[in-house]
Amino acid sequence: MSSKPSLARGTRDFGPEKMVKRNYIFDTIKAVFQRFGFQPLETPSMENLSVLMGKYGDEGDQLLFKILNSGNFSEKISQTDLDEGYKKLTTKISEKGLRYDLTVPFARYVVMNRNELPLPFKRYQIQPVWRADRPQKGRYREFYQCDADVVGTDSLICEAEIVMMIQEVMQSLNINFNLKINNRKILSGLSEAIGAAGQEAALAVAIDKLDKIGQEKVMEELAERGFSEEALANLTPVFSITGSNQEKFTKLEELLQTSEVGKKGIEELREMWNYMTAFGVTDENIELDITLARGLSYYTGAIFEVKALDVQIGSITGGGRYDNLTGTFGVPGLSGVGISFGVDRIYDVLEELNLFPNNQAVTTKLLFCHFGKEEQNYTLPLLRAARERGINAEVFPDNAKIKKQLDYADRKKIPFVVIVGSDELQSGLLTLKDMTSGEQFKLSIDDIFAKINE
Amino acid sequence: MSSKPSLARGTRDFGPEKMVKRNYIFDTIKAVFQRFGFQPLETPSMENLSVLMGKYGDEGDQLLFKILNSGNFSEKISQTDLDEGYKKLTTKISEKGLRYDLTVPFARYVVMNRNELPLPFKRYQIQPVWRADRPQKGRYREFYQCDADVVGTDSLICEAEIVMMIQEVMQSLNINFNLKINNRKILSGLSEAIGAAGQEAALAVAIDKLDKIGQEKVMEELAERGFSEEALANLTPVFSITGSNQEKFTKLEELLQTSEVGKKGIEELREMWNYMTAFGVTDENIELDITLARGLSYYTGAIFEVKALDVQIGSITGGGRYDNLTGTFGVPGLSGVGISFGVDRIYDVLEELNLFPNNQAVTTKLLFCHFGKEEQNYTLPLLRAARERGINAEVFPDNAKIKKQLDYADRKKIPFVVIVGSDELQSGLLTLKDMTSGEQFKLSIDDIFAKINE
Repeated sequence: MSSKPSLARGTRDFGPEKMVKRNYIFDTIKAVFQRFGFQPLETPSMENLSVLMGKYGDEGDQLLFKILNSGNFSEKISQTDLDEGYKKLTTKISEKGLRYDLTVPFARYVVMNRNELPLPFKRYQIQPVWRADRPQKGRYREFYQCDADVVGTDSLICEAEIVMMIQEVMQSLNINFNLKINNRKILSGLSEAIGAAGQEAALAVAIDKLDKIGQEKVMEELAERGFSEEALANLTPVFSITGSNQEKFTKLEELLQTSEVGKKGIEELREMWNYMTAFGVTDENIELDITLARGLSYYTGAIFEVKALDVQIGSITGGGRYDNLTGTFGVPGLSGVGISFGVDRIYDVLEELNLFPNNQAVTTKLLFCHFGKEEQNYTLPLLRAARERGINAEVFPDNAKIKKQLDYADRKKIPFVVIVGSDELQSGLLTLKDMTSGEQFKLSIDDIFAKINE
Repeated sequence: MSSKPSLARGTRDFGPEKMVKRNYIFDTIKAVFQRFGFQPLETPSMENLSVLMGKYGDEGDQLLFKILNSGNFSEKISQTDLDEGYKKLTTKISEKGLRYDLTVPFARYVVMNRNELPLPFKRYQIQPVWRADRPQKGRYREFYQCDADVVGTDSLICEAEIVMMIQEVMQSLNINFNLKINNRKILSGLSEAIGAAGQEAALAVAIDKLDKIGQEKVMEELAERGFSEEALANLTPVFSITGSNQEKFTKLEELLQTSEVGKKGIEELREMWNYMTAFGVTDENIELDITLARGLSYYTGAIFEVKALDVQIGSITGGGRYDNLTGTFGVPGLSGVGISFGVDRIYDVLEELNLFPNNQAVTTKLLFCHFGKEEQNYTLPLLRAARERGINAEVFPDNAKIKKQLDYADRKKIPFVVIVGSDELQSGLLTLKDMTSGEQFKLSIDDIFAKINE
């Protein structure tokens, strides 16, 4: 019966200390989502493969975790099925998979409930997703996504509000950040304007790597992908668009004056900026960056990317507008815009910069220690009274040496301990020990409660 | 590309309205868990099958959702493997499964972290579990469990605290309830005392059905299972143990005086009751019921079961003490006691008795409606100010007829709407509409905020 247990590869336990920190992040983000009128949604962990397959490209299909059909799944498979290879075989023995992201299940939900949903529909969703990726540092097979999306409107107020939500979350978490904004239409316009119309996908992929590989290598890659010398020469001025955001807008307008789609992209961003001004929001942390591309091909309008300053780490938040979320489910024409906070990376930022708050409400605040059965019994009504005052509290349940009880408080990071011995039984004055400072006080129970609630 | 999407069988979406109600239940339970010193834990959704298999009996093994190995899983399987049947085949193509409950992953976690954990370790865990059961009304393939357990102590204070947690949760949710308590040792003692020593498992299974099938059928079943006529005759007085809990204790002591284990069971319950008294807790909702057995065979001490009054529904909460949680992972001797709240059933109880609170903080409280672009722009700084005051608020993002905007507020159950037209632009006095009463007021924005926060 006995076996040494282990975690499945690429998965993690979150013990109390990590949970408290993670919940701090989730709660902060949730509060902002709610303040902006987003409502919670949860979808099932498993979806029919017909919902998931074909939505994330061939690589995505491979990275889906598939669930074996229950019951006698092998009854109907034969040597012929085996010979046809595992991809075909999968379709015969598996009908369900674990969700790969929150966007496709959201689209499914919207399509299935479109007659009842108030439109525009603003939802947030915080749930784990699963990917059969090769695990490595910082990449897990199970991780949480933390998304907010509005669908059913193309108002650019939504983009402005996403910017504000990012600002509020980052400010609440005390993260210094830089928010880069671009618009996919500007990338399209750019490829038009430089004489490489229709090649915006290749342009986006190459330009996305600018930060990592530099201008020269980007140019090389584009040349390899068949961009003409003339196109590359036309592209060069783009890399030197600098200055304030408004200056960039002016230069960009000049550069893209021959491209309708490009002009539309600028117009959208300008309107978004105007909304931000109307809201009274400054753009000091915000940078128009026309080299920002982001990988996902389904974006069609604004794109966002947030990096933390003061720490070397990839983007911690990203998002954008997509015009055809529900098209693959037969419901075209629903435009949406969304944002996704990368909780694992935000966690690492807060950890590295020591930004987690010290006093977390969730942990136990008070432990009653005692010298024996009689003293323990004496603490029980006091323990109950503490809880009735909203103080998270415990009594050490066993008879044990005080040292062991204090050690328990220490390991659990309990800030206050009350020690009850025979003296205390007689006098009614209890010993309160402040575990942080080491100080001890002789106090009545009411004074103890007051001190803890300070 | 287009397909009509559907939910996987036995799974559910939780839209905003349901989410708000479910979170109300989770938050209530969580607050109580925390007040009693329990800390949060999350374990991965998927576990190695070596961790899960053999822990839930043969039926449980069948009900585990198994995950297909990624990559070319069929490479190494042959016709011979097919011929050997799906159970054997499963072991060749699947190494992981979805968790079936929270207890086994908890045991794995304790074993893997036993050197760092403060003992006793008090954790709560609220996560979904999956079972490949045939879906039916009220039975799902994915559902949340909501557990709290203490391991590493056999102090009966923990049992008393579990009773108090149940009381606090039910009182917070306004559910009238009945809590039945028994002790597995009493059931063992009973089988000893009636002359059927060692048959407590069969006795427990049969007696567990008393509520559903009645005394006569229970007796028939026991006879079929080989209980002698004498044993059955000796058992009869048990069904007429009535009166107050203290009266039951007295009668029970008489009945079980020949059984050491039975006396130990009574002693444990009495001690638990004494702790409750020391805490100052009444036992008015609590009933000693020696016919309570509960299915799970791993309980070894106290067992608990909660039913809601005023509504026909099964048990909504249950738990008990087990002496060997981590034994199957090679770490014997850790005693624990735990409780599990059945969130789906609690939801149904609150729904049926109309006990969900009306004013949920999560939904949007205020919507700004407007007659056009200029008016919309006018609302933006006001919207920002509302949010800065902690009011969850939105602006209707599109230009649309007021009727459509009010309809949106209605569908989203937003209680207050501010309507801005050209009059309002000029006077600065805004129209506030109370969507519940239908009343309208002309107010300054500050008065509006004050009214909403009332």
